[in-house]
Amino acid sequence: MISDLKGTFSHISNNIKRSAIREILKLTQNPEVISFAGGLPAPESFPVDSLDGLISTMLKEEGAAVLQYDATEGVTELRELLLKKYQDEGIECSLDNLIVTTGSQQGLDLVGKVLVNEGDTVICGLPSYLGGIGAFQAYGAKMAGVPMDEQGMSADLLEAKLIELAEQGIKPKFIYVIPDFQNPTGITMPKSRRIEILELAHKYDVLLVEDCPYREVRFEGEAQPMMYELDNDDHVLTLGTFSKIFAPGLRIGWILGPEAVNEKIVIAKQSADLCTPTFVQKIAVRYLKSGVFESNLKKTIDLYHQRRDVMLSEMEKCMPKGVSWTHPEGGMFLFITLPENMNALDLFHKAIEKKVAFVTGNVFYCNGGGNNTMRLNFSYVNNEKAIEGIRRLAKIIEKEMVTTESEIFA
Amino acid sequence: MISDLKGTFSHISNNIKRSAIREILKLTQNPEVISFAGGLPAPESFPVDSLDGLISTMLKEEGAAVLQYDATEGVTELRELLLKKYQDEGIECSLDNLIVTTGSQQGLDLVGKVLVNEGDTVICGLPSYLGGIGAFQAYGAKMAGVPMDEQGMSADLLEAKLIELAEQGIKPKFIYVIPDFQNPTGITMPKSRRIEILELAHKYDVLLVEDCPYREVRFEGEAQPMMYELDNDDHVLTLGTFSKIFAPGLRIGWILGPEAVNEKIVIAKQSADLCTPTFVQKIAVRYLKSGVFESNLKKTIDLYHQRRDVMLSEMEKCMPKGVSWTHPEGGMFLFITLPENMNALDLFHKAIEKKVAFVTGNVFYCNGGGNNTMRLNFSYVNNEKAIEGIRRLAKIIEKEMVTTESEIFA
Repeated sequence: MISDLKGTFSHISNNIKRSAIREILKLTQNPEVISFAGGLPAPESFPVDSLDGLISTMLKEEGAAVLQYDATEGVTELRELLLKKYQDEGIECSLDNLIVTTGSQQGLDLVGKVLVNEGDTVICGLPSYLGGIGAFQAYGAKMAGVPMDEQGMSADLLEAKLIELAEQGIKPKFIYVIPDFQNPTGITMPKSRRIEILELAHKYDVLLVEDCPYREVRFEGEAQPMMYELDNDDHVLTLGTFSKIFAPGLRIGWILGPEAVNEKIVIAKQSADLCTPTFVQKIAVRYLKSGVFESNLKKTIDLYHQRRDVMLSEMEKCMPKGVSWTHPEGGMFLFITLPENMNALDLFHKAIEKKVAFVTGNVFYCNGGGNNTMRLNFSYVNNEKAIEGIRRLAKIIEKEMVTTESEIFA
Repeated sequence: MISDLKGTFSHISNNIKRSAIREILKLTQNPEVISFAGGLPAPESFPVDSLDGLISTMLKEEGAAVLQYDATEGVTELRELLLKKYQDEGIECSLDNLIVTTGSQQGLDLVGKVLVNEGDTVICGLPSYLGGIGAFQAYGAKMAGVPMDEQGMSADLLEAKLIELAEQGIKPKFIYVIPDFQNPTGITMPKSRRIEILELAHKYDVLLVEDCPYREVRFEGEAQPMMYELDNDDHVLTLGTFSKIFAPGLRIGWILGPEAVNEKIVIAKQSADLCTPTFVQKIAVRYLKSGVFESNLKKTIDLYHQRRDVMLSEMEKCMPKGVSWTHPEGGMFLFITLPENMNALDLFHKAIEKKVAFVTGNVFYCNGGGNNTMRLNFSYVNNEKAIEGIRRLAKIIEKEMVTTESEIFA
């Protein structure tokens, strides 16, 4: 090995932390553990049966073309189909606005790559998706967290942060938001809040990155307009993905963004992987055209809706007083807040002993906060296990509450 | 749009140039153009017929698992199969040495990402694969070119360059080589040269990145040992890919490297795309286990061998005196050197008029040289078209030679 290997690694390499969730997930891999920790879609939601015939026809009709390199921007027909979905919603966009990515994680990475220099500031919610924060931090971003309320990122506190930064001569590169069924909280921004946040982006001349992995997985309530739609001045990049509405193992995401930014992203993507696998993109084209997409999505929504209901109702029944949680209208996650003096990491270790797992909320707080919070996934575990898991968790929390109280009064 | 969009883009974004080849390829998309420009494998070489049954069985036997997220390092069974191939060749390696990447382009990108800081020096051959140079330059690498001879990168000139850099206090991050049927020249390094280069890497305490996309596509002569195999001190990272021996549209590559470097690469990959599509990796597992891999590879080798022969024999027949070219023992490219006073870019525009295309060699020279060189691909165009294309090209070169000569003597 070369003599100073450590010194050979780049700043970027040193910036990237191994995902805390990844480490947590290792502890939960024992099949006896009931895990609310991961972010996995339910395998029951994948259209396994539909794919066989569809791929067979594809190979017969398109032959070698599905196995060849294709354009870096993505397979044109897939881009057109995705575009049409947005246009049907009344969103103004053209082919130059849409790029296919290798999962929306690549979208996050490319956004970081083309926008962030070492030391740049990026604003995100407290808490926010770890994979987003990590992708931006890799390129040297300093994350500035803005607290959330029950309507998502606080507009008042965002403006306060923007003013505070401006006073220090800092203009953030962009604001990162997950408007629908946010990861980790499950909170959705109403239209009014979206408009407020967007107006601040305009006022303070800052781009906005809108991450929408769960948007289509809505159980109840009205769909809120995308911030891309509400924008009228090329301030918004939106990230979409098939991971939660088709299959994550295909790794197909996309970016809907201003042409001038997309141009840079395409060049960066060319250097990153030349193109997203043609084969999976062509499968997606067939799948969207087959009509199974809509019916399968409906089944997925029904499944997660039911799983969320089971979780919420069991939590209602057995969680001790003083514990609160979000009631997401869609998506895959809910968020628990424990009394302030409790530490979710202590709970985590006790939970693993009792064979139930979650992710401690603090990993999503770029400011080191959130020690009394936890994220629970409700898409993966079946109802029977979910009920058992929540019961175990409630008991552990209850016991810990008593211990913590007695410590306080000791 | 925000006010200073240009100023918003990162150094990385400004470092990345749109690929010159990409621009050239746009000019060659007219189906009437006989194009030796691209780097596409022959679609006839893709095992379209074998895949249908194989995927169908896979979906039946493995179900939803092929559509779920999988490990960032890659699907374990695929890693084991790839590892076994190397171990069967007598190469010492274990599972920790092997990571699946989204094409070997992602391998190049990740190598750049974890090793290169702005201003770092990376050594490459003159000429070298543009996608490699570009991936390293994106992270701010200064490329230091070392001339090649008929055995690949010159060991003497490499040492001279290493001494020159050392005198300036510069230690390069790594040496980038493509030992087999190099892109763009088609030249293969004999074992003796590989050892010389590797000894210099050891002596000057520098990593070596060995890019092996064509290694398995050998028509004649003896396979030379990989530099990874010749190394015994964790100095070498090897990049492999299925793009030229199975199908590029699956985007499956891999890195075989020292565990300590791979650890960093896995973390960077997690941030880049979480994992390479599970679906295509699982297809690759089935394909490797089916035994079709070997028979189809043999067919591919035979096809390219024949296409190379046709090209070489036609060039022998009609290229004017003063033009020389390489005789690759495998791979997909050969390299033409024109008389020194000729400019391949002038030829290119005339060639496009006559509906024949190639890539000017200068794009592969990080030092701005190679103006009298051109790269020809022989894997994609069928024999009939290849003969016609070479005839057209020879005529254009001949005419240009006369013009250039008369200009000289004018």
